Amino acid sequence: MDEKGDISDRMEIELNKKNFSEWYNDVIKFAGLCDKRYPIKGMNVWTPYGWKIMRLIDSHIRDELDGTGHGEVNFPLLIPNSEFQKEADHIKGFDSQVYWVTRGGLNELDVPMVLRPTSETAMYPMFSLWVRSHTDLPLKTYQIVNTFRYETKQTRAFIRVREIHFFEAHTCHADFEDAERQIKEDLEIMDRLSNKLCIPYLKRKRPEWDKFAGADYTIGIDCFMPDSKTLQLGSIHQYRTNFSVPYDIKYETPEGDHKNVYQTTYGMSERLVGAIVGIHGDNRGLIIPPDVAPFQVVIVPILMKKRKDDILEKAEWIRNELIKAGFRVEMDARDIRPGNKFYHWELKGVPLRIEVGPRDVDSGHAVVVRRTDRAKRTVKFEDLVDGVVQELDEVKKQLYERAKDLMKSNTHNVTFADEAYNVGRGLINVGWCGNEDCSTEMETTLDMSMLGIDTTTGTYDGKCGQCGSPTKMLVTYAKTY
Amino acid sequence: MDEKGDISDRMEIELNKKNFSEWYNDVIKFAGLCDKRYPIKGMNVWTPYGWKIMRLIDSHIRDELDGTGHGEVNFPLLIPNSEFQKEADHIKGFDSQVYWVTRGGLNELDVPMVLRPTSETAMYPMFSLWVRSHTDLPLKTYQIVNTFRYETKQTRAFIRVREIHFFEAHTCHADFEDAERQIKEDLEIMDRLSNKLCIPYLKRKRPEWDKFAGADYTIGIDCFMPDSKTLQLGSIHQYRTNFSVPYDIKYETPEGDHKNVYQTTYGMSERLVGAIVGIHGDNRGLIIPPDVAPFQVVIVPILMKKRKDDILEKAEWIRNELIKAGFRVEMDARDIRPGNKFYHWELKGVPLRIEVGPRDVDSGHAVVVRRTDRAKRTVKFEDLVDGVVQELDEVKKQLYERAKDLMKSNTHNVTFADEAYNVGRGLINVGWCGNEDCSTEMETTLDMSMLGIDTTTGTYDGKCGQCGSPTKMLVTYAKTY
Repeated sequence: MDEKGDISDRMEIELNKKNFSEWYNDVIKFAGLCDKRYPIKGMNVWTPYGWKIMRLIDSHIRDELDGTGHGEVNFPLLIPNSEFQKEADHIKGFDSQVYWVTRGGLNELDVPMVLRPTSETAMYPMFSLWVRSHTDLPLKTYQIVNTFRYETKQTRAFIRVREIHFFEAHTCHADFEDAERQIKEDLEIMDRLSNKLCIPYLKRKRPEWDKFAGADYTIGIDCFMPDSKTLQLGSIHQYRTNFSVPYDIKYETPEGDHKNVYQTTYGMSERLVGAIVGIHGDNRGLIIPPDVAPFQVVIVPILMKKRKDDILEKAEWIRNELIKAGFRVEMDARDIRPGNKFYHWELKGVPLRIEVGPRDVDSGHAVVVRRTDRAKRTVKFEDLVDGVVQELDEVKKQLYERAKDLMKSNTHNVTFADEAYNVGRGLINVGWCGNEDCSTEMETTLDMSMLGIDTTTGTYDGKCGQCGSPTKMLVTYAKTY
Repeated sequence: MDEKGDISDRMEIELNKKNFSEWYNDVIKFAGLCDKRYPIKGMNVWTPYGWKIMRLIDSHIRDELDGTGHGEVNFPLLIPNSEFQKEADHIKGFDSQVYWVTRGGLNELDVPMVLRPTSETAMYPMFSLWVRSHTDLPLKTYQIVNTFRYETKQTRAFIRVREIHFFEAHTCHADFEDAERQIKEDLEIMDRLSNKLCIPYLKRKRPEWDKFAGADYTIGIDCFMPDSKTLQLGSIHQYRTNFSVPYDIKYETPEGDHKNVYQTTYGMSERLVGAIVGIHGDNRGLIIPPDVAPFQVVIVPILMKKRKDDILEKAEWIRNELIKAGFRVEMDARDIRPGNKFYHWELKGVPLRIEVGPRDVDSGHAVVVRRTDRAKRTVKFEDLVDGVVQELDEVKKQLYERAKDLMKSNTHNVTFADEAYNVGRGLINVGWCGNEDCSTEMETTLDMSMLGIDTTTGTYDGKCGQCGSPTKMLVTYAKTY
């Protein structure tokens, strides 16, 4: 139970989510998700509680990717400069942001190597060996690894770091249509993950000037944070043959021709943890969605002196029943006041608490308390497994609804960008003619960035929010992290 | 089923374990465990099948470490030179073997950073913040990460690589005795893992000149490979206060004194995969121990034209029953000859094969074939779950017994080192007076290295194998990787 970096038992903590930035840093520190005191800025230590959340997220990602026929691989961290340079646009996007290994032991290396910022240039020389025939396609792979960016901006735990825990799927296809099918599958996966994490998201096709270096187009996956800024959680890219030409990834068609493969990637990072912290937490601390909570239930026996043994026995019985039923359960039998335990586990965001006191044991029930709204429900001991299923489900619903409400109530549709000051901050939907200058103007007016084109709604039929020309493109602007 | 790097269906392969070194490289390549064609020597790509084995080993390690109260952490890869330099003996052991990051983006870094070769110098500055009071002890942590060595020797898949998949446990204790208790627990964990991997091992206290840089003493964990060399799989170190003094890791005792903690570490690497390959494999390919086999059972339906449907239906029924029972199962329903499928899955080392043909369906049974001795057993459909349990158990026993026999039949006790040429190569046990010169002489005579002192047998009462002085120390010599 002792989680390093967790100092919640040692001091009184005041959290106020209205001051979001301070709240965010405090809740991470006090709940023991990571330790930022490592002697390199932006490289934090994952302490056990935070790492467990991350690993549970990873396990859902693995389930999804394995279940859709991706093979998990693990590529070397280091990329020789010679490979790194092959795709010109790509390197241009990254060369000021990578770490360089230039020395091995006491020797200068002949070819300097980069720490992967992402793995295209590590993987594709191998893909060119792996793909030979149309029967090798589609090639669907993924890996979960550490990646590196030499960040010069202000760092922030999980959101802007220099060593990034990263998931990346890379696929090769026979043609553009099959690559497009992959992107559809990626978005379905994203829907299911979004549901598990209780985090609604926007998918926006990024404008040309903001697409990933080397991509044909990029779909950004953004969520809306309580400080009215969007956080990019991940992205999905259509590469067409932009990488397969320089990396010479070709297959033989049934007719004996040799063609370049079409490629896609799908990446997400530890920002998912940052979004969980930011979106779900409150003034009492974290609230972890049940699917990724290290402990879904904490049992707190109310230990009266004379009744210690039978209460503890009942609490242990409950724990065993819940573990048998497949839940992740913690029991806090420490000899401290129950109020302190409540406080501790609320801070850590455990979705459900079960209290077992003398009156409960006598009347044959326990009290189940939801972390979200702190609603209490009395459940008979023999019905506890069902009760926990229902209550966790309710917590999940509440989290998801709250997050959706937050996003919805901050989304505003305007006809002209300069109307936006009337409707407030948040997400601004407005028509766009496609002219970059118009968008630049709107960005200035709104003091926001364009997230991209909404491809999910039906046909939009309106006017450009800047020049007034008729357009079918609806775009979204927001302050971004 | 399509595993990249797996080319077993594309060509005829001949394996001959008598030529061990060639066999080892071939079996890894043909079974698709990793791909060595990455453009940096000694940094290989884990392809899906090999990575699954590694991840299953990791999951057993996690179970053991979580079950003994260790918290899983994840520390940054990069270590600033200033921290790296703090323990003088330690850095002396590593400075010619590390990779250096000297540049970030277009800037030279003020403080160069090393890629961790192991994490003492990354973790201990944080431990000094985490440990305050005797109530924080013992502090038991571990992580599973990638580590780096700038190897100048010949590289070999899983055995000598430059990016190493590594497990490391780091603990802090109030006193020497508690640290010794930890080492005892580590050895118990090693026993259980050894059983799961069917790999017997030696524990030898390394001589002073071969201990880990900074350790008080080192216990080497070695296994015996078929080419008569030992492979160090891992090591356990008693640090006493050698690191806690320079890194200032202190705790307050109940009496209010401040004392340095005693530390231990326990590390193992992807060499476990190398040992599985080397020790268990044969001329047909790999044999993966059931506890870490990506597929424990492969079902091969013998698809006759007229009977295709009912045979396939039965095979699918079996697959579902076995999956329900918790086994990792693959079904190979490809339209190729059964013999080719047998060959393919034998090469990949799947411990059990279940054949289902027309006669089997008619008579209500399947044929279960062990990969180890290829013994066939007929099992009624309704008894298959029990049958698989028994047969997997038998495979495990056979693997473990074979490996023990290999080690035992190559272990020789001699009174004087120069008798060894009579008894052959392998492991030579001999008395040692404790004088380094005597050992150097014996190393020369034997053309072997000292693994260290056998602390597991009772009191030895004999003579030094070099000078003849009476001694109670029994030591082991071997050719080592």
